[in-house]
Amino acid sequence: MPPSLEQLTAELARLPGVGPKTAQRLAFHCLRAPRESVERLAAALSSLHAAVGECRQCFFIAEGELCGVCANRRRDPGVICVVEEAPDVLAVERSGGFDGLYHVLGGAISPIEGVGPAQLHVAELLARVAGGGVREVILATDPDVEGEATAHYLAEQLQGSGAAVTRPAHGLPAGSNVQYADEVTIARALAGRRAL
Amino acid sequence: MPPSLEQLTAELARLPGVGPKTAQRLAFHCLRAPRESVERLAAALSSLHAAVGECRQCFFIAEGELCGVCANRRRDPGVICVVEEAPDVLAVERSGGFDGLYHVLGGAISPIEGVGPAQLHVAELLARVAGGGVREVILATDPDVEGEATAHYLAEQLQGSGAAVTRPAHGLPAGSNVQYADEVTIARALAGRRAL
Repeated sequence: MPPSLEQLTAELARLPGVGPKTAQRLAFHCLRAPRESVERLAAALSSLHAAVGECRQCFFIAEGELCGVCANRRRDPGVICVVEEAPDVLAVERSGGFDGLYHVLGGAISPIEGVGPAQLHVAELLARVAGGGVREVILATDPDVEGEATAHYLAEQLQGSGAAVTRPAHGLPAGSNVQYADEVTIARALAGRRAL
Repeated sequence: MPPSLEQLTAELARLPGVGPKTAQRLAFHCLRAPRESVERLAAALSSLHAAVGECRQCFFIAEGELCGVCANRRRDPGVICVVEEAPDVLAVERSGGFDGLYHVLGGAISPIEGVGPAQLHVAELLARVAGGGVREVILATDPDVEGEATAHYLAEQLQGSGAAVTRPAHGLPAGSNVQYADEVTIARALAGRRAL
């Protein structure tokens, strides 16, 4: 293979979920694709890090000082939804069920991986809440071991802050089957049952 | 999403086998990845079309006038292996079973898709063989309908050229099971049986 195609294949193979065969297929695709479309992809990659940073308030991705959510005056600054990673914000936004602001922790507490509160944007969250005007903090970390531990830690830290601390309901996902649901999900769904 | 991330996601989603969700995951990966590694990928993409062209003799990919195979004096110019696409050359090379030269047609004859001999590098192949010194032409087009039709068309055209025209054996692939092989493969394997 010519060196430049070899190089592209090697770089593509570094992407998550892209093995050597997929990388070679993609490289050949780029070779056959119109030059402009390959240049557009190269330009989008190249300008990414220069253009995109973190929102100084909530740590979601932003092209300026503030992200699109924090800069939006129609969002309710009295409710903060705390998530682990930036893609979680997109998922909550897609749901259309939230009109407050976010706080991206940058991960979850995980002693095994050496991630404690100091490695996350916890201090900034506590400062935001201490700043006043926050009625509710929704702890929307993942419903797994690390996410639960993080939620419990944050709930403790936020005690006495004056803001209500909540966590999204755990239960059966929409469109699922009871017979295929795992035990923990069913137990949580039963424990959280509501009157019709 | 900030426009630059949106743009990158859209460009990635144009790649074959990459849906909108994978594109978003890759875009976020690029955001978290070190800036240098993203720049390296961008540079590899950007320099691809400028650096890589087609070999003027066999139409395999090349960084100069001739590809690495045609430029290699230790390859036997008396045997030409005809394939449909450039990746086929890589597959034959990986097998280590061939030391001649190649000829990349650029596809296969397919009346449905409007591809006839004029859309392929057929005339160039006939000219190479007519130029002399070619003892054998191996027609290694795919063993599917279009590939078979192309092989038969080329065999006809090469009649009387003085070169032997052959086709790789069709049969059971290595490591496969007879019970799972399809009927056509088994029939071809039996028809092509050899004495042990």
